[in-house]
Amino acid sequence: MKLAKRIGNIKPSAIRAVGKKITAIDNCISFAAGLPDPALFPSKEMKEVTDCLLTEKPHIALQYGMTKGYAPLIAKIVNDLNGRNIDCNVANIQMTTGSQQGISFVGMAFLDPGDVVLTENPTYLGALAAFRPYEVILKGVDSESDGMKMDALEDALKNNPRTKLIYLVPTFSNPSGRTWSIDKRKAVIQLANQYDVVIIEDNPYGDIRFEGEHLPTLKSLDTEERVVYLGSYSKILCAGLRVGYICAEQNLVQKIEIIKEGADLQTNQLAQMQVDELLEKIDLDAHIGKVISAYKEKRDLMMACIEKYFPKNIKYTCPEGGMFLWLELPEKMDANVILDKSLLQKVGFVPGGPFFPEGNNENTIRLNFSTTPKNNIEPGIKILGRVLDEAG
Amino acid sequence: MKLAKRIGNIKPSAIRAVGKKITAIDNCISFAAGLPDPALFPSKEMKEVTDCLLTEKPHIALQYGMTKGYAPLIAKIVNDLNGRNIDCNVANIQMTTGSQQGISFVGMAFLDPGDVVLTENPTYLGALAAFRPYEVILKGVDSESDGMKMDALEDALKNNPRTKLIYLVPTFSNPSGRTWSIDKRKAVIQLANQYDVVIIEDNPYGDIRFEGEHLPTLKSLDTEERVVYLGSYSKILCAGLRVGYICAEQNLVQKIEIIKEGADLQTNQLAQMQVDELLEKIDLDAHIGKVISAYKEKRDLMMACIEKYFPKNIKYTCPEGGMFLWLELPEKMDANVILDKSLLQKVGFVPGGPFFPEGNNENTIRLNFSTTPKNNIEPGIKILGRVLDEAG
Repeated sequence: MKLAKRIGNIKPSAIRAVGKKITAIDNCISFAAGLPDPALFPSKEMKEVTDCLLTEKPHIALQYGMTKGYAPLIAKIVNDLNGRNIDCNVANIQMTTGSQQGISFVGMAFLDPGDVVLTENPTYLGALAAFRPYEVILKGVDSESDGMKMDALEDALKNNPRTKLIYLVPTFSNPSGRTWSIDKRKAVIQLANQYDVVIIEDNPYGDIRFEGEHLPTLKSLDTEERVVYLGSYSKILCAGLRVGYICAEQNLVQKIEIIKEGADLQTNQLAQMQVDELLEKIDLDAHIGKVISAYKEKRDLMMACIEKYFPKNIKYTCPEGGMFLWLELPEKMDANVILDKSLLQKVGFVPGGPFFPEGNNENTIRLNFSTTPKNNIEPGIKILGRVLDEAG
Repeated sequence: MKLAKRIGNIKPSAIRAVGKKITAIDNCISFAAGLPDPALFPSKEMKEVTDCLLTEKPHIALQYGMTKGYAPLIAKIVNDLNGRNIDCNVANIQMTTGSQQGISFVGMAFLDPGDVVLTENPTYLGALAAFRPYEVILKGVDSESDGMKMDALEDALKNNPRTKLIYLVPTFSNPSGRTWSIDKRKAVIQLANQYDVVIIEDNPYGDIRFEGEHLPTLKSLDTEERVVYLGSYSKILCAGLRVGYICAEQNLVQKIEIIKEGADLQTNQLAQMQVDELLEKIDLDAHIGKVISAYKEKRDLMMACIEKYFPKNIKYTCPEGGMFLWLELPEKMDANVILDKSLLQKVGFVPGGPFFPEGNNENTIRLNFSTTPKNNIEPGIKILGRVLDEAG
């Protein structure tokens, strides 16, 4: 049995490896996961709408449906995006199994072996995993608090004529928690136009803003239909249902529909109907408001604890939304060594190195604040602070 | 925007194209779909178990889970397969979004551009769609009532040294309804061993046997762990949940788990738990018994009508199970022309040509009997018989 060449490129998720270590330790405080807080799932309403669907429409909910997706939900998505100044219609939407599948399908649509994908430094690990099977070159572009360094991006585009995609999480990034400024949003669109590349805008966290003004999505600033927007209900409703979507130029969406047909026929039909009915039933803005206030409370607590317990040589981001913050340790400190020490004291996190497509940067750490129970935050950060202090 | 080279290979499903034509006609009798009969979904029990899951375990059911799949369901699958003489354990199983995703992932794991995949003539259209993005050469091997012609398969293996996979639906095939004999099952394993290729055994219909003895799966006859077995709950429980699985050699399964992580993180968590709880709650054998007797009744009726209304120059299979039968018209007859004529009289079906990876065979037709309401079968076959008569 001879595996395909591409299999040499794939590797298991570093997060899941840390997760296994943490699970093996009793009562470990974990800042490693990237999960929504399950206490915020609209479980009661989900039960009600599901009961209704399985009583009234089981012949639709449990049957094969359209590859494109469940039409009433698509109509709601179009309406929602139009309200966010994204000019689109039904022909621009394809439902996917979470936005993860969207990344993978855009990779399949565009990437030949040897092509280049540019990402932020650091970037979402799952995107790297999605692109690797297409035998591409992944290049990280250095980023600062308001987005990529634009001169570094332009250099990367100049030096890599085979660049096909720029993958971005411009709002409350996973892992860094950073958000792109409006100026850089406009600038990246301009560069994409100039160098004829496609931007993937992955936006699972955009609605979870604790403070400050909402900024326009890249898709709403798109002048040549070259932004592929990926949306998801995983972070604002619930993750396990795996309902996400692509909004993109319609010819591309047609190709992706054909890819989807071969890949898995369609996204779970009941799940799409559950989301659709839930959007009818609940006040989504009020629900998101609850998520925001719960996560803001945790972020505030985590920031306060970091200020109190961390040594002064640790740099950190203060995210205006989302689920993550990002630590930079002194250059010679190795987050993997810190992790081993902190696990001995039952505190876990994800070292930041794997979030850089070209490696290195082992002196970085991702901390999640959405999943950890509130009363674990202070004791966990206190221990981590001591470990960092002793190492430094 | 320059799409990947592979996009030149993909094409939309011929079945879905016919489906659109049929949907556009009021009260069209359709033998085109390949759906299970929704009246047979265990909707009441599904509602009960779902209600219970969303009351007692929403924090698990609506949350991210393991990429590999929901452990209790995997344990049941292992147990079930062991009972069917398939020697496997948890390490051999990966959950997938329907067995369609299994085909796609095995393609991703094995196929480099220019590799060859051998299939039956005719074969499942969705498999061709799953393989095409990997830029492979798809070759059909002529088949007869008890499976592939073995000399034709050996010639194909000899003539195509880049053959990586043999894709088979050996039991109640879609589209032909045919079933492989025990001798050919053993012979194909031997050839796979000899030529060092992998067999994909896609078995969504195996349990739906109307008469005769169950035959051993290829996987149970596998001597060198080179059969990848694809199972699915789509045809025996319900299709919309998209729950299937791969059973294969454990190193391969580890690779596929990594592929899955990049492709869509995991299969819908609630859906896996629904299937797991349903298997606890219902008597699966009794339920499958109901499916069998309902489909057998429809098959019997369709066979009787074909005998009564079809001209004698039409050849057809009489499937011992599954959901399909297969027509061979006189060589010069074109099923596409027949379809246009029969649609004028409000009867639809799928022409068989697209089921042949290398094209031609336009004188063939797939008929589905599981989806069509019983009282539509006689009028539909009568009309189709008349159209065939007039054409012949």
